Amino acid sequence: MIYMNAIEKQVLEKIKPSDEEKTRLENTASYLMKRAEEIAAENEIPGVEVQLVGSAARGTWISGTHDLDIFISFDPSLPRDKLEEYGLLIGRELARESESWEERYAEHPYTKLKFSGFDVDIVPCYRVESAEKIISAVDRTPFHNLFVREHIVGLEDDVLLLKQFMKAGEVYGSELRTGGFSGYLSELLVIHYGSFEKVLRAATSWKPGETIEMIKSKHSFEEPLVVVDPIDSNRNVAAALTLERFTQFISISRDYLRNPSETFFLKANPIPMSDEEILDSFKKRKTGLVAICFKTPDTVEDILYPQLFKMQKSVEALLEKHDFHVIKSKVWADEKSMLTIELENMSLSNVRKHFGPPVWVKEHSEKFRDKYINNPDTFKFYIEDGKYVAELPRKFSHAKDLLESEIYNCALGKHVNRSI
Amino acid sequence: MIYMNAIEKQVLEKIKPSDEEKTRLENTASYLMKRAEEIAAENEIPGVEVQLVGSAARGTWISGTHDLDIFISFDPSLPRDKLEEYGLLIGRELARESESWEERYAEHPYTKLKFSGFDVDIVPCYRVESAEKIISAVDRTPFHNLFVREHIVGLEDDVLLLKQFMKAGEVYGSELRTGGFSGYLSELLVIHYGSFEKVLRAATSWKPGETIEMIKSKHSFEEPLVVVDPIDSNRNVAAALTLERFTQFISISRDYLRNPSETFFLKANPIPMSDEEILDSFKKRKTGLVAICFKTPDTVEDILYPQLFKMQKSVEALLEKHDFHVIKSKVWADEKSMLTIELENMSLSNVRKHFGPPVWVKEHSEKFRDKYINNPDTFKFYIEDGKYVAELPRKFSHAKDLLESEIYNCALGKHVNRSI
Repeated sequence: MIYMNAIEKQVLEKIKPSDEEKTRLENTASYLMKRAEEIAAENEIPGVEVQLVGSAARGTWISGTHDLDIFISFDPSLPRDKLEEYGLLIGRELARESESWEERYAEHPYTKLKFSGFDVDIVPCYRVESAEKIISAVDRTPFHNLFVREHIVGLEDDVLLLKQFMKAGEVYGSELRTGGFSGYLSELLVIHYGSFEKVLRAATSWKPGETIEMIKSKHSFEEPLVVVDPIDSNRNVAAALTLERFTQFISISRDYLRNPSETFFLKANPIPMSDEEILDSFKKRKTGLVAICFKTPDTVEDILYPQLFKMQKSVEALLEKHDFHVIKSKVWADEKSMLTIELENMSLSNVRKHFGPPVWVKEHSEKFRDKYINNPDTFKFYIEDGKYVAELPRKFSHAKDLLESEIYNCALGKHVNRSI
Repeated sequence: MIYMNAIEKQVLEKIKPSDEEKTRLENTASYLMKRAEEIAAENEIPGVEVQLVGSAARGTWISGTHDLDIFISFDPSLPRDKLEEYGLLIGRELARESESWEERYAEHPYTKLKFSGFDVDIVPCYRVESAEKIISAVDRTPFHNLFVREHIVGLEDDVLLLKQFMKAGEVYGSELRTGGFSGYLSELLVIHYGSFEKVLRAATSWKPGETIEMIKSKHSFEEPLVVVDPIDSNRNVAAALTLERFTQFISISRDYLRNPSETFFLKANPIPMSDEEILDSFKKRKTGLVAICFKTPDTVEDILYPQLFKMQKSVEALLEKHDFHVIKSKVWADEKSMLTIELENMSLSNVRKHFGPPVWVKEHSEKFRDKYINNPDTFKFYIEDGKYVAELPRKFSHAKDLLESEIYNCALGKHVNRSI
């Protein structure tokens, strides 16, 4: 805590867990870890170590967020199928005492539980000697934990402020759906720059390609922000951060420093518009709206969203190619998925001017002429600015017709394509 | 006459004046010239010489076109006001015997008469020693006449064919309204290339910047076709030829050589469309039509048309600037003048996306943000592709409103502006 203004102090009072809340978390974590060790012993599972990782282990969790990440580590010599079997076994045994639970399959399978109001992940991993020797991505987490715990002391409050600021500004969360800042990334930024405000101040001068090398890297990265992972120089901790979220963070940092206020830490609570208000707004804007709805494919978010974004991009390109100009599009996913696109124009003239090569470029222009001059579809054929022009009918003069006919030729991603 | 195919022979039979027609022209010209000399003598006007110039003097006139250009030349020592006085005097005296007449004021005043079915121009000029010493542009004409008469012998029929081909192809006439080939230019082309067909063959390989130097020029010209005037190396005979007519000529030359037919020498006689057909065509094309009508300013064509074209260009630019896309526009002038513009879209969405600088370009993007974020007109403000975007209402969402409001801010030319 280098410097903190009155607003930040006030915010901190609200988001910092009370002693009572902390004790409850610590007790819950201790209990689960002890039980995990007991289960391992009872089942004669060899070489098990249990540890708490993540924000709960680092004092960087925001009051009210009750996530516990408990990692069960095994010796690297253990075969993978055994690791999965033991990991799920311990998870299932713990689940007996939980309110609800499920098994998830990422790189390894792991177990999610609800336990006394906490969201608990029980994750099996290999206990490798160093970060260079990791077998799967989750093996890196304990090293992250170690690094942050070593460097974060005294800066926890700054991390809380930064996380809350990022959440309210809608740039927090590294899932592909959001493309924002991860918790680990926010911690590294505070460690690197030294305080909440220093991170914001630095961000006001960021440009795409901004690179923070807490250790040197030989690798060259392409992402808007590069933060070399201090425990693995080949990895960019900010790899998932999109240009959108990157610039949004620059923008809100600048705004906050010019006019600090508590609202920057409060989530926006937009009042939903009534149907009438929505219709009225479209009337005022004189725009068109098309939507593509379909059953949400049954897959995890980190596969679904990239496919939805891919679809969004290729449908936009299709529309633009046919002269329908997109104002803004958005994807939504719940039980149903939806791509909505606001268009400048829903329908177009039936004529498009197709320009040929300049008349003096002999062969090409003769070919063009032969192709179009006697084509029964050609409305008119003439010379403009020294080039042949054929006025041709459009294949699609209404956006709906275009989408209905051409959607299947768009790059949609496997799952989305199947669902549509 | 190097080579001529059956079609060309056939065409020539129709367009070549008969001996009887020739005799009538020669007799009329001789009579008028003799009378001009007599009038000069009667009025004691000193140093007058009378000569016939133009196509009638060169045997390059098409049957049915009855133009006589009679030049009255004076000694260069004669003061300008005297030249004008004497010129008009001779004109007026000749006019006594004419069917109708008028006085026109170009660089010098001259007299136009209808005489036994001929359109006669009586033009005063200075009889200078050489083309370098001309006092006004008309003084050049006798030198052109001399040059062509010397070189055209034996090629007259080729000139007739070329002129007829250019007329039918709508590229003949060097007035600014047309921007096509002048008679003198067509004669030079035949002299240079050697025959009608050779001109066409050459044209199929023309590119903008094509230069024909019958004498060397030190001047560098910018026009699509450069034909250095053999009697004045600083002048491009094709200066008035537009890129449109230039490429049109390339195009019809190519077409004719691929498929020679008499239709290339016949003027198109388009069948006028009925009102219903016109409406039907717009319905099919789903386009919009706007027209600007006004009383034709009282000025000569060579001043009027450049102003109309200027208006056409600047109105097109105005429309495009406001996202109304022009398919084709056309100017017309009679008693009323009219600019018609076919548009892809008569009305637009009320929203336009105004992109600011990238967010990381600090000062500029902050300025942009401050300007638009709290502007009550701004529909939405957000970040896209790393740039700030303000969604603003359009000032004009209908082409008619735009034109009514902004036409006076267009570059229109003095006379047109006053008339509108």
